Amino acid sequence: MAGVDHTKQETGVSLVTKRRPHIMTIAGSDSSGGAGIQADLKTIEAFGCYGSSIITGLTAQNTQGVQAVHEVPADFVIKQLDSVVSDSYPTCVKIGMLTNASIIRTLAKKLSGMDTITVLDPVMISTSGHTLLPEDAIEALRELYPSIDYFTPNIPEAIKVSGWKSQGSADELRLSDLIDLAISTNKSTGAFTVLLKGGHATISRQELAAYRGRFEIVWEEGDDEDDGAEVLTLYDDYLQLPAGKDLVVDTLVNRGEVIALFVGRKVDSTSTHGTGCTLSTAIACAHATSGIDLPDRNIRMFKTAIAYTQSAIASAFPFGEGHGPLNHSHLSSRRALPPPTKHNPRPFVTHLIQSNLPLWKSYVRHPFVVQLGKGTLPRESFEHYIKQDYHYLKHYARAHALGAYKANNFADINAFTTIAAHIARESQMHVNYCAEFGISLSELQAEPEASPCAAYARYVIDIGTQGDILDLYMSVASCLIGYGEVGLWLKKQVEKGEATLDGNIYKKWMEDYAGADFLKAVTVGIENLERRVALDPPSEERLARLTSIWHECVRLESAFWEMGLKLIK
Amino acid sequence: MAGVDHTKQETGVSLVTKRRPHIMTIAGSDSSGGAGIQADLKTIEAFGCYGSSIITGLTAQNTQGVQAVHEVPADFVIKQLDSVVSDSYPTCVKIGMLTNASIIRTLAKKLSGMDTITVLDPVMISTSGHTLLPEDAIEALRELYPSIDYFTPNIPEAIKVSGWKSQGSADELRLSDLIDLAISTNKSTGAFTVLLKGGHATISRQELAAYRGRFEIVWEEGDDEDDGAEVLTLYDDYLQLPAGKDLVVDTLVNRGEVIALFVGRKVDSTSTHGTGCTLSTAIACAHATSGIDLPDRNIRMFKTAIAYTQSAIASAFPFGEGHGPLNHSHLSSRRALPPPTKHNPRPFVTHLIQSNLPLWKSYVRHPFVVQLGKGTLPRESFEHYIKQDYHYLKHYARAHALGAYKANNFADINAFTTIAAHIARESQMHVNYCAEFGISLSELQAEPEASPCAAYARYVIDIGTQGDILDLYMSVASCLIGYGEVGLWLKKQVEKGEATLDGNIYKKWMEDYAGADFLKAVTVGIENLERRVALDPPSEERLARLTSIWHECVRLESAFWEMGLKLIK
Repeated sequence: MAGVDHTKQETGVSLVTKRRPHIMTIAGSDSSGGAGIQADLKTIEAFGCYGSSIITGLTAQNTQGVQAVHEVPADFVIKQLDSVVSDSYPTCVKIGMLTNASIIRTLAKKLSGMDTITVLDPVMISTSGHTLLPEDAIEALRELYPSIDYFTPNIPEAIKVSGWKSQGSADELRLSDLIDLAISTNKSTGAFTVLLKGGHATISRQELAAYRGRFEIVWEEGDDEDDGAEVLTLYDDYLQLPAGKDLVVDTLVNRGEVIALFVGRKVDSTSTHGTGCTLSTAIACAHATSGIDLPDRNIRMFKTAIAYTQSAIASAFPFGEGHGPLNHSHLSSRRALPPPTKHNPRPFVTHLIQSNLPLWKSYVRHPFVVQLGKGTLPRESFEHYIKQDYHYLKHYARAHALGAYKANNFADINAFTTIAAHIARESQMHVNYCAEFGISLSELQAEPEASPCAAYARYVIDIGTQGDILDLYMSVASCLIGYGEVGLWLKKQVEKGEATLDGNIYKKWMEDYAGADFLKAVTVGIENLERRVALDPPSEERLARLTSIWHECVRLESAFWEMGLKLIK
Repeated sequence: MAGVDHTKQETGVSLVTKRRPHIMTIAGSDSSGGAGIQADLKTIEAFGCYGSSIITGLTAQNTQGVQAVHEVPADFVIKQLDSVVSDSYPTCVKIGMLTNASIIRTLAKKLSGMDTITVLDPVMISTSGHTLLPEDAIEALRELYPSIDYFTPNIPEAIKVSGWKSQGSADELRLSDLIDLAISTNKSTGAFTVLLKGGHATISRQELAAYRGRFEIVWEEGDDEDDGAEVLTLYDDYLQLPAGKDLVVDTLVNRGEVIALFVGRKVDSTSTHGTGCTLSTAIACAHATSGIDLPDRNIRMFKTAIAYTQSAIASAFPFGEGHGPLNHSHLSSRRALPPPTKHNPRPFVTHLIQSNLPLWKSYVRHPFVVQLGKGTLPRESFEHYIKQDYHYLKHYARAHALGAYKANNFADINAFTTIAAHIARESQMHVNYCAEFGISLSELQAEPEASPCAAYARYVIDIGTQGDILDLYMSVASCLIGYGEVGLWLKKQVEKGEATLDGNIYKKWMEDYAGADFLKAVTVGIENLERRVALDPPSEERLARLTSIWHECVRLESAFWEMGLKLIK
């Protein structure tokens, strides 16, 4: 796809700065934030698109009504549009409140020269009953229709633009009336596709049944006849629904033919301020974000937009005294971690280290390490440590083998078993050290596990068994990353003259953990963690659990050095 | 906390419709969507607050500059404000571009009578260099200062309002100059707290070092001297940083005293259009969403707001030809499932069933079940099924015991072991059936496991061992929920005359799975799933994995009936 810019770090974490679909809204401003360009921008954010906005008029408005309107001169509407379009061409345009005939006519001329997908929501009357478009402006709309791809009137608006004669009030309209009205609107406006929003009327299941097989009926939640979920009728809240179920039907018509009926149960809510703005913008967003080659693209995108709007109403929070706004962000959740960027390419490991820096330092700057670097660490401390670390390594290798068991693909199985094999070989380093200190392999194997060693090793194995593969990764991470940190830090301390290699009996140990082989393994381990977390971003809850595993391991690592230093059994 | 409205469903899923902090922005409109009220509303959405907007002027603008301005009459600014405030009082107010002296004076009068937290970002010059506030209006700002809690000028703005004399150009300013300028601005404006944004100057580590110990220094990522993360210097992208590190320092001053210096590495980016709007709004949001009793509330909220703005710049996507906008939604991710609402109280189980309805129906409406309900199912099919189900139950009980091992609290341990014990008792039902069919317990135990039984049972155990506790829940869910569905559906079929209990040799089986005890267990199981998923919302990736476990189990359940019907060994 053109316009997509992937920046791939050499280190393996993908830093995606994807160009976003640009949705431009041309509409009024609602000071209270629930309708107009405010509702549009909130919807566009929710769909992960980029929103710009051309303001046609300002309203002094709240959830109870529109108190005043300030019209924007038609030429300034065009100035805004020219500024935006000359700099970034929109993927889709949504048109809402147009205020007056002059703006409509000027805009119609402008749009006729543009090549973009356009949704027109003919805002004529606010939810609170305020007239937002005078009669002569409704006539002027005809000039706009040729530029429109999707037209989304509600019942009163459709009646107005089509001149269709209702047999009674909207409450008495039957489904056959709605279908007739939708077709009539489509014919009279000539707009490519009409979605007649049926929210002002309620339809019974019996009426709907008559159209089964004739039109595609798209249910909000599956199949009406047998939804396979008798079991959900066990709940009080389910049984409380009216036996007949009041349905809302939106009718989609294209070139005079019914394409689909979208059917849902009526949501009982007063939080409906800005519903029309939201739905029409959601259609523009769904169009911009859906695949291009789907044969049922229209139906799927309308279903997405309608479902979003319905659940935004159902999940609304209280605001104001009248008809409250929708919950535009109900499908968004706050990331517990920022995404990786060039500025902060490893947000997860950075978070782990920073989340309790004193604890982390109590491990990676432990006196055992400091003394080891200076060569002043008592030999018996190191001996005790290295014998226990031999035991620890065995369990650490087992944990990686368990990781291979928990893996779901050969790449992971290969990675875990390779590490396990590497650890098995690393244990030879310990055998060699002990030989230097006059301890035989059988003595080494016969050494009982000290409590701090057992506590740590068995914790890692238990977390690995109890949790999933990411928990297991966490439980082995602080050992790998911490030893890399210690190796590198000691190397830099040597450069600063704060530690020494010359004549240091621990020289080999220091060189091993600052060596290219080990540090390569550390960087690969860090990248693996970052990649997993970027692919499957943790919730706050999950991140807290992962962080607590990290903290516990860091604490146990620190206790492990302490065990060596104080000869704890 | 007042204003919080929790609706608790009797069935146990909490439907939270929490009142949100209301952030009102008073600013200009940026048609291109990157600055002004558009940036403010996007920021407010990102913080999970509710945004309303009072527009002071419209700009025809893009990423390359401001092409035209349409001023809004001061009285219409107040009309908008009155509409909003009379209906919903804002928690915090952010003030941006004020266009002219008349608006400032009128607004100053209005705000002096309001009791709210106010952040003033004195927008004077756009990122692209356009003057947005004339000289006489800067003078008029003095009338506004008494109503302001937080004031966030950049260096040129601070110089303008304070009259401070610079020794040279902003590029040559030293940290001591910035501190002096911040204090001077605080004294001259009288505003309670000043955050001087230092982005126009760069500071060296040496300069900063002089202030260590004198002021609180808040680093973007931890401690500058030893951040405990030598290991991160292994990466190329880390080493590519300039050795001296160009730092940006924001200075926070209150009552003439420096409270903190916020220090970060300069983000190298041209995506800075709307940075000031974003930061000031983020401060209002951080104020509204932070706890009230924290002693270090100010520092924490400023740190949150600065970090948000920095990472919004760092993660920006391409847009327009000039200075592009920030990525306001970089901390938001799209929920894979809608939150539970009264309209859709069980979104997870509804999703699972609807995600492949034909597959689900091949299980819960299987011919085995239909024939069982009518009493026409061959007796040997039922015998074969019930013997295999006896084996299956054993593994199903083991899976629940494994769940208790994987649990982290006594409530879960109790729930899992209770179910395991219940299943062990349920097996007696199978023993009794077999006795009726002339099959002894020892014959039952000696019956080999048929392949479809082994495939399913061992899959459940493997998923339970391989994954975490939620994976385990998923692997046992379709059996529980499906049998509840079958029991209830058969009961309704009896009511409709499509199935029969009278003279049906499978009557006992039908009554058991439609019985109150079993159906209670089913509803508790469904609620447990919904609760877990609502508490720890899955990513798209995680939901796909959970759904694939569900599908595999449903497929294996269907094959289990087929095994009975076709006497598959």
